[in-house]
Amino acid sequence: MANSDIEEGLAFTPKFDANGLVTAVVTDAGSGDVLMVAHMNDEALQKTIASGEAWYFSRSRKAIWKKGETSGHIQRVIEMRIDCDQDAVWLKVDQQGGGACHTGRRSCFYRALPLGKSGAAKLEFRDAQKTFDPEKVYK
Amino acid sequence: MANSDIEEGLAFTPKFDANGLVTAVVTDAGSGDVLMVAHMNDEALQKTIASGEAWYFSRSRKAIWKKGETSGHIQRVIEMRIDCDQDAVWLKVDQQGGGACHTGRRSCFYRALPLGKSGAAKLEFRDAQKTFDPEKVYK
Repeated sequence: MANSDIEEGLAFTPKFDANGLVTAVVTDAGSGDVLMVAHMNDEALQKTIASGEAWYFSRSRKAIWKKGETSGHIQRVIEMRIDCDQDAVWLKVDQQGGGACHTGRRSCFYRALPLGKSGAAKLEFRDAQKTFDPEKVYK
Repeated sequence: MANSDIEEGLAFTPKFDANGLVTAVVTDAGSGDVLMVAHMNDEALQKTIASGEAWYFSRSRKAIWKKGETSGHIQRVIEMRIDCDQDAVWLKVDQQGGGACHTGRRSCFYRALPLGKSGAAKLEFRDAQKTFDPEKVYK
């Protein structure tokens, strides 16, 4: 398929990488904050589209999984978009439960990288308060 | 390094993939919209941190590039965060010029995937108006 069709057309032709995956960026539909970055294979994409709830592919476990299956922290997808070259999707979700991150926080992005420094950067906590107890939720 | 140190510590220890890259999610600091998804190698990360302007690694050209070098559409980084396992960064940027997408749009995510459908999905344009003429900007 020509680049112009992939970029300007309305056919859904996801461009999977060598591992059969596209990147999924997940934002909170309310706050706009990025909650997590994950991956989807074809099956996870299809299940997400059909159900309106987010499914991903775990690269470490090599299996699809439904977000919230263990924790109850399901992601209801409000809107799903695909990028110009169709190798990344953006999910705006209604995050159920305490949050998206397995560490017990609302977002996986709870540390900032200070800018304007050279050499070894030191992270700084931002919005890092825990919103649920992962030991209770993932047992 | 133990998982707990990577997740709960303040040492910046990016986890590069087999190609030496981390995923970069870029949002508009004003609207919160996702503008693009790209990749950074160690050099692009360091240049971004030091300069406060976004640099990426092109997987097709196998070279780092500064966003806006040709187009003038530089991204001034307002805040940069890293995720729990340190394999993805989130840049909140002040997007200079017409937009981030090489197709001439503000965001690369200008098509939605309708939910609740099974089988072949057909995309729908969303916020797809062009904000600049790519033929004039990238010549």
